[in-house]
Amino acid sequence: MSHNSFGHLFRFTSWGESHGPALGCVVDGCPPGLPLSEGDIQPFLDRRRPGTSRFTTQRQEPDQVEILSGTYEGLTTGTPISLLIRNVDQRSKDYAQVAQAYRPGHADYAYDAKYGHRDPRGGGRSSARETAARVAAGAVARAVLGADITISAYLVELGGDAIARANFVSAEIGRNPFFCPDAAAAARWETALDAARKSGSSLGAIVEVTAEGVPAGWGAPVYHKLDSQLAAAMMGINAVKGVEIGDGFAAARLRGEQNADAMRPGPDGRPAFLANHAGGTAGGISTGQPVVVRLALKPTSSILTPVDTITRAGEASEIITRGRHDPCVGIRAAPVAEAMMALVLADMKLQQRAQTGR
Amino acid sequence: MSHNSFGHLFRFTSWGESHGPALGCVVDGCPPGLPLSEGDIQPFLDRRRPGTSRFTTQRQEPDQVEILSGTYEGLTTGTPISLLIRNVDQRSKDYAQVAQAYRPGHADYAYDAKYGHRDPRGGGRSSARETAARVAAGAVARAVLGADITISAYLVELGGDAIARANFVSAEIGRNPFFCPDAAAAARWETALDAARKSGSSLGAIVEVTAEGVPAGWGAPVYHKLDSQLAAAMMGINAVKGVEIGDGFAAARLRGEQNADAMRPGPDGRPAFLANHAGGTAGGISTGQPVVVRLALKPTSSILTPVDTITRAGEASEIITRGRHDPCVGIRAAPVAEAMMALVLADMKLQQRAQTGR
Amino acid sequence: MSHNSFGHLFRFTSWGESHGPALGCVVDGCPPGLPLSEGDIQPFLDRRRPGTSRFTTQRQEPDQVEILSGTYEGLTTGTPISLLIRNVDQRSKDYAQVAQAYRPGHADYAYDAKYGHRDPRGGGRSSARETAARVAAGAVARAVLGADITISAYLVELGGDAIARANFVSAEIGRNPFFCPDAAAAARWETALDAARKSGSSLGAIVEVTAEGVPAGWGAPVYHKLDSQLAAAMMGINAVKGVEIGDGFAAARLRGEQNADAMRPGPDGRPAFLANHAGGTAGGISTGQPVVVRLALKPTSSILTPVDTITRAGEASEIITRGRHDPCVGIRAAPVAEAMMALVLADMKLQQRAQTGR
Amino acid sequence: MSHNSFGHLFRFTSWGESHGPALGCVVDGCPPGLPLSEGDIQPFLDRRRPGTSRFTTQRQEPDQVEILSGTYEGLTTGTPISLLIRNVDQRSKDYAQVAQAYRPGHADYAYDAKYGHRDPRGGGRSSARETAARVAAGAVARAVLGADITISAYLVELGGDAIARANFVSAEIGRNPFFCPDAAAAARWETALDAARKSGSSLGAIVEVTAEGVPAGWGAPVYHKLDSQLAAAMMGINAVKGVEIGDGFAAARLRGEQNADAMRPGPDGRPAFLANHAGGTAGGISTGQPVVVRLALKPTSSILTPVDTITRAGEASEIITRGRHDPCVGIRAAPVAEAMMALVLADMKLQQRAQTGR
Repeated sequence: MSHNSFGHLFRFTSWGESHGPALGCVVDGCPPGLPLSEGDIQPFLDRRRPGTSRFTTQRQEPDQVEILSGTYEGLTTGTPISLLIRNVDQRSKDYAQVAQAYRPGHADYAYDAKYGHRDPRGGGRSSARETAARVAAGAVARAVLGADITISAYLVELGGDAIARANFVSAEIGRNPFFCPDAAAAARWETALDAARKSGSSLGAIVEVTAEGVPAGWGAPVYHKLDSQLAAAMMGINAVKGVEIGDGFAAARLRGEQNADAMRPGPDGRPAFLANHAGGTAGGISTGQPVVVRLALKPTSSILTPVDTITRAGEASEIITRGRHDPCVGIRAAPVAEAMMALVLADMKLQQRAQTGR
Repeated sequence: MSHNSFGHLFRFTSWGESHGPALGCVVDGCPPGLPLSEGDIQPFLDRRRPGTSRFTTQRQEPDQVEILSGTYEGLTTGTPISLLIRNVDQRSKDYAQVAQAYRPGHADYAYDAKYGHRDPRGGGRSSARETAARVAAGAVARAVLGADITISAYLVELGGDAIARANFVSAEIGRNPFFCPDAAAAARWETALDAARKSGSSLGAIVEVTAEGVPAGWGAPVYHKLDSQLAAAMMGINAVKGVEIGDGFAAARLRGEQNADAMRPGPDGRPAFLANHAGGTAGGISTGQPVVVRLALKPTSSILTPVDTITRAGEASEIITRGRHDPCVGIRAAPVAEAMMALVLADMKLQQRAQTGR
Repeated sequence: MSHNSFGHLFRFTSWGESHGPALGCVVDGCPPGLPLSEGDIQPFLDRRRPGTSRFTTQRQEPDQVEILSGTYEGLTTGTPISLLIRNVDQRSKDYAQVAQAYRPGHADYAYDAKYGHRDPRGGGRSSARETAARVAAGAVARAVLGADITISAYLVELGGDAIARANFVSAEIGRNPFFCPDAAAAARWETALDAARKSGSSLGAIVEVTAEGVPAGWGAPVYHKLDSQLAAAMMGINAVKGVEIGDGFAAARLRGEQNADAMRPGPDGRPAFLANHAGGTAGGISTGQPVVVRLALKPTSSILTPVDTITRAGEASEIITRGRHDPCVGIRAAPVAEAMMALVLADMKLQQRAQTGR
Repeated sequence: MSHNSFGHLFRFTSWGESHGPALGCVVDGCPPGLPLSEGDIQPFLDRRRPGTSRFTTQRQEPDQVEILSGTYEGLTTGTPISLLIRNVDQRSKDYAQVAQAYRPGHADYAYDAKYGHRDPRGGGRSSARETAARVAAGAVARAVLGADITISAYLVELGGDAIARANFVSAEIGRNPFFCPDAAAAARWETALDAARKSGSSLGAIVEVTAEGVPAGWGAPVYHKLDSQLAAAMMGINAVKGVEIGDGFAAARLRGEQNADAMRPGPDGRPAFLANHAGGTAGGISTGQPVVVRLALKPTSSILTPVDTITRAGEASEIITRGRHDPCVGIRAAPVAEAMMALVLADMKLQQRAQTGR
């Protein structure tokens, strides 16, 4: 049982606080002989990196990753891969008030209730800065999955304003600061998020992440379903309050015959499905269809609007969260969700090979 | 790594197929000295038991539990508790067709793709019959939690028809076959589900499960969040396609100041929260507020309406799922969701005690 | 973390007390498609079964195993295999005194100190009767390993009297009640153990277990060495106080050049080793040589000679352990050691396949 | 399942190769609020540090530890503690030959057979340099155990020459380069090891490690016995080939009445044991007596005497292991064994608290 580890056979353990000297992770169980260098990891960190637009925190972190172990002559050796990212732009003085009064929506009170002693600077361990470690580990997971599996995350809703599926253009995802596949929606979001930011508020978002090329048969029954592992992975991302697979909550409003993903003989000997309401899983096991997951992210809790709270001493107070924050944490969650998808699937791939030899 | 185990310190391992001689589970890690007999478990099984109304499967299973180990003179000893439930009303002949053609929405194809060899009778291991083991284990978990924590699950929507929160009466939950807290909604659901059943169709549902009395401080950061564990627990229940905590997906449409659960000094030295958008967790750790989770269940995949499919040999076919089935699997998911909540919380309680001594 | 589970990918969880209604285990992670029926398991249980000679306890237990799940039409399905063995010859009245006074050398005091409440009948969970579950699980493990790996355990010393290696004849192991490969030693042991038994005493033993056919590359570095896993497996067998691999303690008295297992090119492309001081492992990973482990078992603690002790109330007392016991627990440990070897290796086989695809 | 993690509730994951830029570990599950700084860890590393006498390798490594996370204002926060140790004195050119030919007694061949690709410099991951991470983690474990538990390891035999128990003086352990409690033996060992070293050979050793102050009740039945966990911990230390608890192998030569640790009422309400043949455990659970473990270490495999071997290409060759090595790896194993004892006990302490609240 490891609170800070994720995965079973492909497994990583993360460490580090928002304002400590560094953060990182140790990836264990990686197959040997895979090409891996910092250059394979850095592009994913760069996508998650703060400070790249006015819609993310202005904290300037280069997030340069160092591989400290587990490779030799550019190939993985099968031993633990230690990844290190230095923190360079801490401004801990911003957090003096946080040490004394709890920020509603943040983990401050819960951590104090649990541990009695916490690092209040930037939220310490509860900061979304930890997700850099996940993204780095996720890049290693992609090396395990190989080129046949493609993973993509993007925002489908921001501040309650959804994309039009008819406008979906994959290439748009990289062209705006919102990982938005609908250019028209991206334009609207820019206006909305600017307004929220200027008024000291914040907005929520819905991220969709898909994996194509996953073969049928990954996952396992009952308590280790692909669905369960994805739900745990995504619900564990900071600010996520909901996860759905395939049609998700909408499936609860369908009738049995509407929800059935009918099957026909496919051209390659594998079944052709006539629909994908299930989002690529049945009985907790992949069907060969695209795996489709959506996650709901609450609006950033760090806002400049004052909120009622109490101090550590239990006295009534009011708090404004200064410091540098994302006006919509959902945006940078997209590369994190991709990483978590890759991490779950890499683990499942090794498990499937272990039990069945396939 | 155990595909059929759940939990870490309070942990159970389930086994059994729908049409095998029996099913059961082994509960490991239970604290010693707790009163426990079959009489403490049976009432929970009776709530989940099939055949109690025309809205659940007509399979007649008494689901009598036997404790085979782990207690002595009516108290737990701290050693593994083996629980056994005999299957008595299998009708395996209903499943001859299932062995040859895949039922869309079921695990048939995925199991075949994974294992190459499966027990097709009643879905084998993928049958929701396995949830009896969870409910039995959940009863033990409740003994660990004690009387201060109360857990309740109920349907808040069936076939797209939601309850009115204003009509919520806890006592109603046990008075209708739908675990519905709104008597008016229950009456409407009866009509709707009768119609669906008679037309050979099925309906979906949304279940809400709450836990009151959970102290602040349970759960753990990053990959072992209370949120993550609940999401995995609930998403692993048969037919669940979505899980949300607190406001869930609706939180993605709130602004930061709307979503903040403001705090005031409370009468007992603990904070009084002015709202519970968060559903009782912050940073993955309980806040002392009620823990609130909702799960979306797809409509039963076993329907009498014919659906296109393929055979194991890959040929086009059509299938009607005979056998005895629930027209809305969401109904009997309510006691299962309660069990999973209890199981997660019992595990968290022991973990909190381990790390902090509290 | 499961106190009553063993293994990682090939994993089983055992349950049951000496005088409860039954004992058993759940085997999880077994590959699908392997032939498995009760007839594949029963012969191993029969070798461990009590009451087969005057050198083992006279308790009459048929140890008939039932497979309750996880197979279909004679093949494993990849789902959990539940194995059940009924207890039929409990005589719990023998244990009235044990409930009140601690038997030195037994777990009575330690269990009470840990749990505060225990099942005293026959030692409850601490009884070696639990090893029947291991032997049953071990038979499944052998199915995973296949015919290329042969595992054999035998006694090399009893009551301080060692076999002569020059007299080693494999076929002798099954011809005497001591699993002794040296017919002359077996004759001496018969005399010695009869004498010990008649004088109300007991003797210790050393068991050696070997596995041939293990390919090079199984095991893993650092904390998951084949050596570590074997040590945990063997040290966890009741009454074991020491474990050694290869030359073991004797290796501490060799010089570096004496201890080196020199290598030469072998006929089949694999290395030919000129010695096996290492017992088949290097750096925690198998080398392709026979894996050789020895375990030291203390003399049975249940003896008819009175021993000073205290009661639960803390008063001075004296105890004679009545009931039916083995005068040398080391004998029946041989089939248990074989089972644990098979269980460790099956787990390692799946792990190796998971990480490397081999 | 983590090959490079150890422990369950108090758990650490180590990483790093002998000649990489650094090594370290992440300690997870540490209770909050414990005083911890580099100064609490460094003294233990200094005891294990190479280059402090002519009887250890001449590689000069300061082994300075940095705490990168998990503490705030000098106290643990309950979040992961990342510990980093830089390698500063690699001389990788010494290992050119090792990349081509396998060193008998080393992991070279086994790693190649497993992974197909390895870091040959200084043995890579299989180097005993990894044990620095264990010692650092062990220092944190001692903080968890507190001052009531004292752990001590020392050599009781070197090159086949045992100490005289009558000469045992605890204070001597720190006064000679052998962690030897018998001054006369230490003098003899100096001569013997000088001779072995000068002749290009090496010697083995037996280390004893004891823990006093462990309360009764730690450990758990069946597969998680204190004995099992200690056996795994000690057998996993580089070069260890045997582990015994209490009388160990000698217990196999005692009669039942000789081996019984009789009990009498003690002055403090707890039992007074009249002997400790069991080495502090019964049924896998601590009894309150000192926990006593011995481990046998083979002679260093790196010797200047030529040994027959084969190359990676399978051709006959001969190898002398140049580089800088300990002539007796058993010596520096003493602080490592202490660390492993502390790590097992800290884990057991938290587990006991989890299950029983004590």
